[in-house]
Amino acid sequence: MLLKDKIPFKYIFGEIKYEVAYVMAYSVLVWALYHNVHVIRISIPLTVPAILGTVISLLLGFRSNQAYDRWWEARHIWGAIVNDSRSLARQVFCFMQEEFESEQLEQLRNRFVKRQIAWTHSLGQNLRGHSPLTGLERFLSRKDIETVSRYTNVPAAILNLHAHDIRDALNSGYINRFQQVELDRTISRLCDSQGKCERIKNTVFPSTYSLYIHFSLLLFICLLPFGFIEIFGILEVLVVTAISACFMLIEKMAIHLQDPFENKPTDTPVTAIAKNIERDLKQMMEDENGRAEPAVPVPASTPAFYLM
Amino acid sequence: MLLKDKIPFKYIFGEIKYEVAYVMAYSVLVWALYHNVHVIRISIPLTVPAILGTVISLLLGFRSNQAYDRWWEARHIWGAIVNDSRSLARQVFCFMQEEFESEQLEQLRNRFVKRQIAWTHSLGQNLRGHSPLTGLERFLSRKDIETVSRYTNVPAAILNLHAHDIRDALNSGYINRFQQVELDRTISRLCDSQGKCERIKNTVFPSTYSLYIHFSLLLFICLLPFGFIEIFGILEVLVVTAISACFMLIEKMAIHLQDPFENKPTDTPVTAIAKNIERDLKQMMEDENGRAEPAVPVPASTPAFYLM
Amino acid sequence: MLLKDKIPFKYIFGEIKYEVAYVMAYSVLVWALYHNVHVIRISIPLTVPAILGTVISLLLGFRSNQAYDRWWEARHIWGAIVNDSRSLARQVFCFMQEEFESEQLEQLRNRFVKRQIAWTHSLGQNLRGHSPLTGLERFLSRKDIETVSRYTNVPAAILNLHAHDIRDALNSGYINRFQQVELDRTISRLCDSQGKCERIKNTVFPSTYSLYIHFSLLLFICLLPFGFIEIFGILEVLVVTAISACFMLIEKMAIHLQDPFENKPTDTPVTAIAKNIERDLKQMMEDENGRAEPAVPVPASTPAFYLM
Amino acid sequence: MLLKDKIPFKYIFGEIKYEVAYVMAYSVLVWALYHNVHVIRISIPLTVPAILGTVISLLLGFRSNQAYDRWWEARHIWGAIVNDSRSLARQVFCFMQEEFESEQLEQLRNRFVKRQIAWTHSLGQNLRGHSPLTGLERFLSRKDIETVSRYTNVPAAILNLHAHDIRDALNSGYINRFQQVELDRTISRLCDSQGKCERIKNTVFPSTYSLYIHFSLLLFICLLPFGFIEIFGILEVLVVTAISACFMLIEKMAIHLQDPFENKPTDTPVTAIAKNIERDLKQMMEDENGRAEPAVPVPASTPAFYLM
Amino acid sequence: MLLKDKIPFKYIFGEIKYEVAYVMAYSVLVWALYHNVHVIRISIPLTVPAILGTVISLLLGFRSNQAYDRWWEARHIWGAIVNDSRSLARQVFCFMQEEFESEQLEQLRNRFVKRQIAWTHSLGQNLRGHSPLTGLERFLSRKDIETVSRYTNVPAAILNLHAHDIRDALNSGYINRFQQVELDRTISRLCDSQGKCERIKNTVFPSTYSLYIHFSLLLFICLLPFGFIEIFGILEVLVVTAISACFMLIEKMAIHLQDPFENKPTDTPVTAIAKNIERDLKQMMEDENGRAEPAVPVPASTPAFYLM
Repeated sequence: MLLKDKIPFKYIFGEIKYEVAYVMAYSVLVWALYHNVHVIRISIPLTVPAILGTVISLLLGFRSNQAYDRWWEARHIWGAIVNDSRSLARQVFCFMQEEFESEQLEQLRNRFVKRQIAWTHSLGQNLRGHSPLTGLERFLSRKDIETVSRYTNVPAAILNLHAHDIRDALNSGYINRFQQVELDRTISRLCDSQGKCERIKNTVFPSTYSLYIHFSLLLFICLLPFGFIEIFGILEVLVVTAISACFMLIEKMAIHLQDPFENKPTDTPVTAIAKNIERDLKQMMEDENGRAEPAVPVPASTPAFYLM
Repeated sequence: MLLKDKIPFKYIFGEIKYEVAYVMAYSVLVWALYHNVHVIRISIPLTVPAILGTVISLLLGFRSNQAYDRWWEARHIWGAIVNDSRSLARQVFCFMQEEFESEQLEQLRNRFVKRQIAWTHSLGQNLRGHSPLTGLERFLSRKDIETVSRYTNVPAAILNLHAHDIRDALNSGYINRFQQVELDRTISRLCDSQGKCERIKNTVFPSTYSLYIHFSLLLFICLLPFGFIEIFGILEVLVVTAISACFMLIEKMAIHLQDPFENKPTDTPVTAIAKNIERDLKQMMEDENGRAEPAVPVPASTPAFYLM
Repeated sequence: MLLKDKIPFKYIFGEIKYEVAYVMAYSVLVWALYHNVHVIRISIPLTVPAILGTVISLLLGFRSNQAYDRWWEARHIWGAIVNDSRSLARQVFCFMQEEFESEQLEQLRNRFVKRQIAWTHSLGQNLRGHSPLTGLERFLSRKDIETVSRYTNVPAAILNLHAHDIRDALNSGYINRFQQVELDRTISRLCDSQGKCERIKNTVFPSTYSLYIHFSLLLFICLLPFGFIEIFGILEVLVVTAISACFMLIEKMAIHLQDPFENKPTDTPVTAIAKNIERDLKQMMEDENGRAEPAVPVPASTPAFYLM
Repeated sequence: MLLKDKIPFKYIFGEIKYEVAYVMAYSVLVWALYHNVHVIRISIPLTVPAILGTVISLLLGFRSNQAYDRWWEARHIWGAIVNDSRSLARQVFCFMQEEFESEQLEQLRNRFVKRQIAWTHSLGQNLRGHSPLTGLERFLSRKDIETVSRYTNVPAAILNLHAHDIRDALNSGYINRFQQVELDRTISRLCDSQGKCERIKNTVFPSTYSLYIHFSLLLFICLLPFGFIEIFGILEVLVVTAISACFMLIEKMAIHLQDPFENKPTDTPVTAIAKNIERDLKQMMEDENGRAEPAVPVPASTPAFYLM
Repeated sequence: MLLKDKIPFKYIFGEIKYEVAYVMAYSVLVWALYHNVHVIRISIPLTVPAILGTVISLLLGFRSNQAYDRWWEARHIWGAIVNDSRSLARQVFCFMQEEFESEQLEQLRNRFVKRQIAWTHSLGQNLRGHSPLTGLERFLSRKDIETVSRYTNVPAAILNLHAHDIRDALNSGYINRFQQVELDRTISRLCDSQGKCERIKNTVFPSTYSLYIHFSLLLFICLLPFGFIEIFGILEVLVVTAISACFMLIEKMAIHLQDPFENKPTDTPVTAIAKNIERDLKQMMEDENGRAEPAVPVPASTPAFYLM
């Protein structure tokens, strides 16, 4: 997640520094040849690159729109994960009860809430291509970890453990039949959110589309110096570089936004969101248990200019 | 929220008065240099800035679209909060009952409805960066305030209190098991709305995108006087300023719309909406209680040209 | 609601007749000055107004899109009101029953359905700024009217009366607990629809955005005659007026569409829809009661070229 | 529904043959006058019609987008009708049961499924402006037809009959109370789909918007020959006709798409969809009844190049 | 599904190699005629093809947008199929139980889950135009295959078998009445997803729209050489071919994206998704059964550069 007012100028242009260098070199070369080699004194009317620029802006506009939509959808999904995690914990604490609160029930509820935290971390790590099991020992029992590590899809396996505990709670009389169905619905929503993340992660943006725009952009940049050389002279190098940088930046942006789970600064901040869920659910758990648990300290987010 | 027909002209241009001054100074300077310093008598064909203008309009159009969508989504969410608050109060009064209406039940219902008002105010203040606890003592008991102030996320804690009261109502026999689940769903919807607001608040608009458009706009304004100077002479200053002001205004608008919870006049009017909910829920409460409570006077909205 | 094939040409241009007159006068003036006063013989290249025209079309296109979305959303909501009113009536007649159909039950059902008709009319009138109580005496008892007139928000109060009757029906054993919850959901959907209408009604379109486009349009029209005068001579007046009229018409259209509850011909036809609901629900009521009630005649829609 | 690869070239241009003839005649006339009458030898720069063309493309693009959305929404709704009809039949066969399958129950289930087929046909015919009662005698009993023909809105009346049968099934003990509510929800969804179709049918596309684009297009076509006459000579007739035909075709397309229930080839294929539902539901009915009913032969869809 | 970084350059241009060859031949011909046949030395101003290019980009942009939406919707639906299949399996294992786990129950659960795998494969094959019955013998009993093969719509028939088993489970007391309704809802969602796929498959993109853009593109390419010949000479062939290729590529892309179930590389990867569901559901089944079943080996996805 980008944090406002903190992105160093260096970072932004770091992304395209090689491209900018190439363009600058190219436009100097064109200028040099134009003034020395009399044979290739080509100057094309400005209309050609200008119109090409309009066309490219249009397509780039449509494309950034679609990339933005993917990125915003990913953020939507993780927003829903926050809401459903909170609702699940609320339901666990307010649905599951018996006449005399037993230790067994308290253990079940705590296990449930910790497992939900584990799911959030596990899903985030899985989407980023890391091991979905790392760090789960803080939240899951050894037996549960063994069970879920047998599955290819670890987060889905964690949700199955949820469902088993709900069944056991029904059998123990902690919840009634309506509450079971209602809890199952919350789990179905979490399952949906997981599936949606996986869909975005596994479906590449149509690459022919991207390639077309990239080729058009190259053609446009190649023609640019010939359009400006007669009007601006050597200043042409500056104008060409500035305009090219603008277009390349927005193309880069679209490429980043379209894949929101790739360890890039514009990513959905899954780690930060998972830590927030952890904090909220732990506070709720401590409050319900009526005493302050020795809270596992949540590592502070590093003072970087973006959140993972 | 902007109120129609009330925005003074001064306010609109106040937003960009420094920028307009700079542009005017710059174009006067260009005119002066053009007519005095014979060396830099550059006049570029109008096509260059004109086409650049089309490109920028296009990108600005796409961007305002996205900013508008964020703003409109925020408004949607607060609309849903109004609806769900009304539905919650209706359900509380029509679901919760016993054969002989007891004082205890009446207290529970009133406590519930007042807490819902507290939640609305608290969420609005939290989103605007103010303390979420300010003024809650009008609606919450001292004990409840103590409980919620232990949480990092105060509005979420208030919803948890709701859930506890629903559980108690089930145990006391005021509601049946279906009604508990139905009330819990309404609370889940409120929890969703809260999460959506926090998502919009915490996710910045991709800043590289904004920066790109801003740089392009600067480039465009810099080139503008050179395009008009030959045709219009000194009148060029007027034309350049007018066109620049248009573009800068719409960019400003997009910047305002994209962050709808930042104490700006184009914000979602969370305070006004919370007050409306307070008014409606109190009327309902008084009517149900069968007598006119000494209503806490709702402060009139200030006669400003926008609502907070 | 606009009715196809019935809008007189006069109506369309009536909307912008003063503006057209001003533009015509202005372009005649420009022509006169151009040919008589030799000092101000300015002719600007056609590119300037032409490109400005592209920019404005683009922004106008985006804006009409957003205005159209508001208008279409309003139509969506009233479509949902039709559906939910029909569903509510169907549920009332098919859920509420007892072994031997009593007169009391029939009265309850009829009261319920009539109150639903009352709600529709009341909401429509409220949105258009008329008194929400006018004409309700045809559908509500004197006591109910007294109750709802104590509320600031009359339609919301009518829905509360619905909820009370549902509670009484549960207590009388006419419906079971599932049916109560299901009826409550239908009422929640109606409550949502009401809230959505109020959101559209109370949220103005960002006015700075509109103003920007309006100023740009003025600038464009002012420049237009200077672009055409050399090519077309006096015919310039015709061309300028035609083009300006086109742009002004589409701007007017966007302004109308963006506020769909303002007593304008492009409004959502809330009165007509409410009358249709009244007709359908009354037919259903008569059929269920097994006899033809002396139907209150629904006033025919006036043969105007638009429906309110 | 348009069937791919089957639309004869003649059909496409048949739609605009008169318009094309007028344009051709007009451009020949302009050529003739240009070369014979020396007085009106006007040739305007190509920029004027060209830019006008861009503006019109833009608006036409936005408009086709909105027309396409209406058409696609209509297709969505009928897709939902297919799904909900299948679900309703599945629920009727799997929910409604008793210990010993009686003939009475079998009759009820068959009556229900046939009535659902009737509803689909009736809704389709109603939307296309045909009598909603035609052909219903194949699916409804004489008594049911009499009942529904008393209603203004026949499909809504059929859904009411559904609801009555569900109530009777509950009273006879064929279904339990949850299943009643679940069946009622399916019927509410069908009721929603019907209401959405009626909304699209009854809400015209804002006609001022269409008119504006139409006038602009006429203006553009009138100017076109003057722009090309100097460059192309008599070939101008061909170029002008080709370009005009393109624009007129896409305008026609938008007009067709925006009203998807008007007996036009681009319509939603309500008849074909209703027949598919009929086929699927009958197969299910025969299978459940355990014997092959003498199936009413479904008339083959005519080998036309589009489906109704 | 396109796999990133693996699409050979040859593949991309293979799609349009004939078109590129034609364009190249055509522009060489124009060059040859221009320089040899003095009669047809037509050179048109660059503005004509350039503006036409803008118009076409705009329409192509809108169209790719709509094609992309269809493709993305198809991907959405199959994402929902993954989620609902997982949820169905989870519900089957956690809802269906009895006091002493009997072999009969285990068989029922396994049959259910295998049938769900069968449904996924069957739907995928049906959408791609293959026989929906191929390979189902791995998952369905001989009797079930016989039953479903009597239906025109095989996947819908499989869902009916699901519904029958749910009814039997209710009668056997494995599930309660709420769970039956909840399972039925999951099946309704699967039924919805199937219907949505069929809608996309059976509704062609409005062909007149496609044709219009195709004709405009042809006209544009025909005019292109005449615009460039004077400026670039023989180099014109390269420029014309490059620009044409760009436009043709993006048109091709839109054509591919708009029909996402046609055995093309850009298709929704229904086979791969069905195999993933198979893998996940089998792992869950083995785990629940408490022993490792001799798993039917899932054929590895071929190392091609796209997934089916």
